[in-house]
Formats: sequence, structure tokens, C-alpha cells
Amino acid sequence: MLQFDSQPGNVKENIARSLMYMDKAAQQGAKLVVLPELCQSGYDLTREMVNQVAETIDGESVKQWINFARSHNMYIVGGLCEQADGLIYNSAVLIGPEGHIGTYRKVHLFGNEKEIFAQGDKGVPVFDLGWVKLSMLICYDLRFPEAVRLAALKGADLICVPTAWVTPVGKKWDERGFSMQAYCAMAHASMNRIYIACADACGSFRNDQFLGGSLIASPSGWPVAGPASVDEPEFLIGDLDLSLARTKSHNPHNNLLADRRTDIYGEYSIS
Amino acid sequence: MLQFDSQPGNVKENIARSLMYMDKAAQQGAKLVVLPELCQSGYDLTREMVNQVAETIDGESVKQWINFARSHNMYIVGGLCEQADGLIYNSAVLIGPEGHIGTYRKVHLFGNEKEIFAQGDKGVPVFDLGWVKLSMLICYDLRFPEAVRLAALKGADLICVPTAWVTPVGKKWDERGFSMQAYCAMAHASMNRIYIACADACGSFRNDQFLGGSLIASPSGWPVAGPASVDEPEFLIGDLDLSLARTKSHNPHNNLLADRRTDIYGEYSIS
Repeated sequence: MLQFDSQPGNVKENIARSLMYMDKAAQQGAKLVVLPELCQSGYDLTREMVNQVAETIDGESVKQWINFARSHNMYIVGGLCEQADGLIYNSAVLIGPEGHIGTYRKVHLFGNEKEIFAQGDKGVPVFDLGWVKLSMLICYDLRFPEAVRLAALKGADLICVPTAWVTPVGKKWDERGFSMQAYCAMAHASMNRIYIACADACGSFRNDQFLGGSLIASPSGWPVAGPASVDEPEFLIGDLDLSLARTKSHNPHNNLLADRRTDIYGEYSIS
Repeated sequence: MLQFDSQPGNVKENIARSLMYMDKAAQQGAKLVVLPELCQSGYDLTREMVNQVAETIDGESVKQWINFARSHNMYIVGGLCEQADGLIYNSAVLIGPEGHIGTYRKVHLFGNEKEIFAQGDKGVPVFDLGWVKLSMLICYDLRFPEAVRLAALKGADLICVPTAWVTPVGKKWDERGFSMQAYCAMAHASMNRIYIACADACGSFRNDQFLGGSLIASPSGWPVAGPASVDEPEFLIGDLDLSLARTKSHNPHNNLLADRRTDIYGEYSIS
């Protein structure tokens, strides 16, 4: 989990930073790195900037990440301002030594993202890499337990979540540097018995700041790593024990997926 | 929110304790009191005990709670081992000065409750008391974000949650006395912008103990009161600002209920 600050519009610098930090993470043994939301482009974009910085999956930024993944034998989940079919998406790309593996496009857009990006049209895909079943969500998506449950029902062991957390009003962190967003991630991880790795932006945002405090929540809910600093770039490494994510039973009587009372939820179904 | 320890099978003593504590809470201005799961009967019951202690809504325990509510002009949500139509339910009753208002029957049964209690058959009702729209869930129900969302979609301002929290394995609390169950309650409150008042049992449970640490989470997620002691009886009073629970918009672009992507969830609908 790699938390860092991107500069709006400065793609070259942002990709260079991501490579520099990922190199440090690789030296410490990281096999999979999660980068913040829109870290390639910077988060706070105008419509004009978006048109300049958006790239296709075949573009230069993804190419550089693929080269890095190949040379370091690593996997990367990175936030990308993606251009496709004349539309622009707030996306996360999954990259491995074998190249581009898959893309997730943010389905719950926040704030003026609605004026800039097209709504995600790929659902909540789960990618089976052999050694892990990996899903992706982006930031505000984590406010929708439906999306997390969807990934769990589709068999995800791990959800990688590029974020750019802000809290417009009210308390940002408690005295330990946990944001409410971090607690939501922990609760989701616990309720679905999955890993959730949130990589947040840090640094300033208009007159405010991103929350930092990235973390990797375990299937018990408690963090295996984090929270990271609230304002500085940082990477956190956590070991995943996938057997924990694949045990959905609490005891001989209770399986968290089988215990769902779909007969009761029906009246206000999410469908 | 009233956290206390009940004795398995000793209904008379348990009701007397609830009245004693509620009297103290009333003196401090409480208008609505939430009591723990099965606090009338005690939590750790055998099938034989259940047959002895189960009561109907017309029974002596509810009668005493109604008398108290009437004389103190208060509302009570209390956990009851309920007998009805030849079945026994893990229920919560809502009582006011006007008498018995409604009943919720636990829909997600935990552990050997499945061998003892019938599954809840009343869905997740929301009761409009004029001054608050109140829903009820019980303990393990809070592990199902679907149930909480259901209450929110039906307009609940507040979910009252009698609990008897246990953690069979792993870390029970962090260094501040928050359990993962407490964080789940905070996350639900935040994601649905509602109040959630959890009243936990405390004291011993077989070779383990109940977690205590009851709390009242606000629509921001952060607690208005709590967590309570991890092992002692305690009551917490919190003020509710219902306008917070009735504002589902984060900003001009985002309403947490309208932003749900039901088109995406469909493939793994909860219905």
C-alpha cells in the first residue's frame, strides 16, 4: 500500500514518483502495490485538464507501469484518468508481469467527478490471478456496502482500493489517526472476511487536505498494516493469509454468506 | 443505552435490575432506553431453560416495563425471550407510555440460537413515533449491511440494537476499548447517516465474557456516547439531532441513497 501526493495535471512527475516509491517497496519485498486514486493525473482536475491528461490503457503511463511490473516481477493496482471510446473514466488498472490484466471503472462518482467522468460500466469485476482473487473499488465506492458484498459474493480475497479521502465537514481523524473511511474499510473487511487495502492520497486539496491514513484491513477487521501518516508519503507492507479470507464460517452454525436472509431483504432489494 | 449483566434463567432478578438501572437513567433525563439482548432471560440459555423463561408480549416482564414506561413517560427497547404461537423468538420489544408498540424478531441467528429460536418473521420494521422513526436489530444482525440499509431505506432515524457481543477468537478490543462490533456500528451509522444505539451485555459468558463497550454512534459515524466499560454495568446518554439523520446528501452532487447503483448490484442482488 503506497500513499503519496500527486500533482494535478503533471502526469510525467506523478508516474516518476510512483516508480520511485514502488522501487523502494519492491526492495522491501512487496509483490503487489496499490496506488492512490487518479495518482497518474492528480485528483483535483478540471474538465479541461482531464481532456489533456486522460490516457488510454495503451498509453505511456500504463506502459511504464507494465515495464516496472515486468522488471520487478510485481503486480500493480493504480489509479488512472482513463480515456476510452470518447469517454473519460476514473479507473483503476490491474497490471502484472504479463502486462495489463484488467480495469475497474469507478461506479459511485463523488462531487464534481459527476461532471467530469462517465459512470463505471464494468460492474465490480474479480480477477483470479491464481495466487489471489482480486477485486478493485475506488474511494466513495466504499460507502456502499452493496459493492463490497458483491465482490465478496464473487469470491474476492482482497479488494484493492485507490482513494483520495476527504471529509468536507466534521472530525477527520480520531486521536490515533484513523479516519471514518478507515473504520468503514475495517468494518467491510470484518463483515465479509476479506482483505481490503486502501491507498490514499496525501497532501493538500483546495483549502483542505487528503486524509492519508491508508491501511490494509484483515478479514478480522483489524489492520495488518496502518494507518499510515495523515500527511506524508508512506508505504505499508502487509502479509496476506488467504485461508482467512476463504473461511466464511464463524462457527459450525454460521457462514456469513449463507446466513444472509435474502427473503427479508427482498422488499428493498438492491436489484 | 443501558449496559448490564443478566443472570441466565433468573427473570425476576433481571427485570428488577433493568428497572433499577432505568430509574437512574430516567433521573438523568433519558427519554428512550435501549437494553441488552435477551436481558429479561439472560443470554446463555439451554433449550430447557428457554421453555421455562420465554414469555408472551402479554407476560409479566413486558407488563413491568410498560408500567415503568408509563410512570416515567419513557420509551424502552428491551431484549425478550418471546413465546408466540408455539415458537420462541429472540426478540426486542418497543414499549412506550402508551404500552407495547411493536416487536422485532432477530432475523440472523448466531451459534446455537439456531437450535433454540425460530427465525425472525417480521422483517425489519420501522416504527414512526412522531418524534423519531425507530428501527431495531439484534447483535449478529449488525454483521449484515443489508439489514441496516433496509432500515435506512425505510426511513429509520435510529436503530436500537440490543446485543450480547462475543469474539470467539482474536482481538476483542483495541487499546481504547472499542470492539470490532463497535466499529461496524460506527461504519453503518456513517454509511447510512443514521443513529445506532448498541446496548451490550457485560459479564461472563461460559469461559469467555461479553464485550461490553456499548455505544451510540452518530450519523457521522463518530460516537455521541461511548464506548462504555468493557466489563461493568453502565448507562450512556446521548442527544439525537434528527436533522443529521434526515440529511442524506453529502453535497449538491451526492445523496447516499440516490447514489446506489442498483443497476450494478443486480447480478448479485440481495433479493
